[in-house]
Amino acid sequence: MTYLSAALFIIGTELTRGVIADKHCQLLSSQLTQLGYRVDRMVLVPDDGTIAEVLEDCIAHCDVVLLTGGLGPTSDDMTRSIVASLAKVPLVRDKQTFELLYQRIGERIWGANEQQTMIPEGFEAIPNPFGTAAGFRGFIPSGNRHIACVAMPGPPREMDPMFFDEVLPWLAQLIGHDDFSRSEYSTFLIPEAKLEELCKSVTFNGLTWGTRFQDLKISLYLNGGDSEERTVMADHLRSLVGPSLVIDGDVMPSDLLTDLLLERNETISCAESCTSGFIAKLLTDKRGSSAWFYGGVVTYANEAKREFLGVSELTLDTHGAVSEACVREMAKGVLDRSKTDWSIAVSGIAGPDGGSKEKPIGTVWFGFAGKNRPTEAVCVHLSTWGRESVRRKASVVALILASRYIKGDCLLDTVDKWQYI
Amino acid sequence: MTYLSAALFIIGTELTRGVIADKHCQLLSSQLTQLGYRVDRMVLVPDDGTIAEVLEDCIAHCDVVLLTGGLGPTSDDMTRSIVASLAKVPLVRDKQTFELLYQRIGERIWGANEQQTMIPEGFEAIPNPFGTAAGFRGFIPSGNRHIACVAMPGPPREMDPMFFDEVLPWLAQLIGHDDFSRSEYSTFLIPEAKLEELCKSVTFNGLTWGTRFQDLKISLYLNGGDSEERTVMADHLRSLVGPSLVIDGDVMPSDLLTDLLLERNETISCAESCTSGFIAKLLTDKRGSSAWFYGGVVTYANEAKREFLGVSELTLDTHGAVSEACVREMAKGVLDRSKTDWSIAVSGIAGPDGGSKEKPIGTVWFGFAGKNRPTEAVCVHLSTWGRESVRRKASVVALILASRYIKGDCLLDTVDKWQYI
Repeated sequence: MTYLSAALFIIGTELTRGVIADKHCQLLSSQLTQLGYRVDRMVLVPDDGTIAEVLEDCIAHCDVVLLTGGLGPTSDDMTRSIVASLAKVPLVRDKQTFELLYQRIGERIWGANEQQTMIPEGFEAIPNPFGTAAGFRGFIPSGNRHIACVAMPGPPREMDPMFFDEVLPWLAQLIGHDDFSRSEYSTFLIPEAKLEELCKSVTFNGLTWGTRFQDLKISLYLNGGDSEERTVMADHLRSLVGPSLVIDGDVMPSDLLTDLLLERNETISCAESCTSGFIAKLLTDKRGSSAWFYGGVVTYANEAKREFLGVSELTLDTHGAVSEACVREMAKGVLDRSKTDWSIAVSGIAGPDGGSKEKPIGTVWFGFAGKNRPTEAVCVHLSTWGRESVRRKASVVALILASRYIKGDCLLDTVDKWQYI
Repeated sequence: MTYLSAALFIIGTELTRGVIADKHCQLLSSQLTQLGYRVDRMVLVPDDGTIAEVLEDCIAHCDVVLLTGGLGPTSDDMTRSIVASLAKVPLVRDKQTFELLYQRIGERIWGANEQQTMIPEGFEAIPNPFGTAAGFRGFIPSGNRHIACVAMPGPPREMDPMFFDEVLPWLAQLIGHDDFSRSEYSTFLIPEAKLEELCKSVTFNGLTWGTRFQDLKISLYLNGGDSEERTVMADHLRSLVGPSLVIDGDVMPSDLLTDLLLERNETISCAESCTSGFIAKLLTDKRGSSAWFYGGVVTYANEAKREFLGVSELTLDTHGAVSEACVREMAKGVLDRSKTDWSIAVSGIAGPDGGSKEKPIGTVWFGFAGKNRPTEAVCVHLSTWGRESVRRKASVVALILASRYIKGDCLLDTVDKWQYI
């Protein structure tokens, strides 16, 4: 049969009483979606009562059911017996699971833990190196269908490694990835809906993709094909959005810059207006940041631009704070005072007030200076989803452009490709 | 009939694709549990396809069903028509909802938004001050039972106020609390588990409570009793954690400071080391921040403390950067250069490197200066849940202490009460 629709079944009274927040649904559904499954429902139920009935309903409607929780050693933990009963098989002791657990806890196994070595007959045990509850997987007959069923322990530190190491490859095979493999990319500044649309336009040979939103970036996973084909698809994408917005591997926008500085053994400082400290904050998110970050100034008021950076009154009066002349003087000013190798300057209109016809909200000027490099400046018009969004995007742009500037790339060429930000 | 068992029904394809994490389940289930309901299932489904069928199953088994999502203006948004069809009534336009929306968006209402003013006949509309989708509540007949059904919009910033202001009191009445009322407080720096424990220790006369975690604060809701009793409970709590960590109403730690500055028509600047720009960022999160914020310096390197703030080499050599002498000089330095009314200085050890026996990770010094006020400094030892957590907590501490300093309170007395942060 074809396996396509999936259900998640999360068991835990602490969830339905609101004591803790569920951590599995997003992780599992994003991974299943990436493999090509359609997650049709995610159900959270308490330990007591209605598990069997709700699970039966899931099985009647989905091809794959992933369960988490209810594998503990107490009488509340009923996942094993419920699955066995739905599959109409007895629970049997899994020899290997028993031996592994016996090695770890010895004679104590004869208490409640012994039941944790039982699995439904015909199912396959999944070892759990981080806890006493083994998982299991197998098929539950339902009419002429065979529903794939996987049970995993509830605690994330046990579930997560079991899922990624043992269950994900199995599910990949089940949906038809013979040789399941994937590549990870980090994308910046492209709205998720646009990224989806662009991937659709460049995919070929059945390559699939999945995305995961994480704070300042969206992770992009290309699935299927061989690694060369996935690279071709990523390169197609880069040709549409610019190479600086799609980066190999799992990196944050600040990593691009700080890894480069670390490699070159160089330092940076920054002068911020509209981002008001957020770039400085991002540059110090990682341990050891004193190796590359000197410090900077937040020159929110115009007087601060004059006092701390020596921006001229003439510049501010003639061109305003959001201008090429101003960010050039800001970049030069902080570089000279800091004596760092490089500097970043940002001045823009975050809104919701302060926009004008000439300089609408989202207009941001970026300036860059280096010890032995002519100062450069470039303007970007950010789409505006509110003050916070403009500030966050401007910070990401500054970090990306700084790394391009240090590498000697033309900034105008770089931002020219950014039609979607 | 008796209303006891509840189901949550969360609609959104972005949830079942794992694009975003659900934020409603924990909030709603904890509140329902506190009222005395038993949450029997929480179901998340995509916009497309199986909503009606799964919802019907919920209605067959539970007394109360809360729905979120699917109230938008597009054809994907089917909550209204599905509920109407289950209740076997037509959709009708709610006059008041229509008029309110017309006042806000005018003729544009005649596009897709018009359907957002339709509700199932016999149901009651719930106004949505933060979006275009009204909610609704009513009863769905099922055999000889009448299932209570509430539909709310999906976005948390629309759902949360609607739930707390309009739905929670209704649900309280439904389960038999005759005179349900509540008070909201904002708590800072107290871990959620500790807050829970403290509430348990000070509750009386059957007052209940609920908490909601939001970025830099935890909202605390006290439910039941009369407003005087709730005030007594809040005061008990304050006597345990210090009055500055439990504030009436819905406020962010930066509001405490910026509202005060706005009221006094005064300005502030800051000098940050370990928080590296985050305080400056928080002080400018709100529109119009140039009224109170001048700017500041991020003096990450020791040379930056000397260059930008005039911190003496002797101080740095003798006491180190994380010291009383250093933050005093930082605060004074930035005040003198900025000519603001007030200034904040922070220097601490965020980790994971740099801790020592004398100055373990989490040690943070705070300095405050004012035009006509002696400079003050105080040290706080923050519990360490990682670099990011120390930096965020230090920023909140700085904002709270700055407002106390401006008010003329003794800082040592204030932090003395903070045994749980």
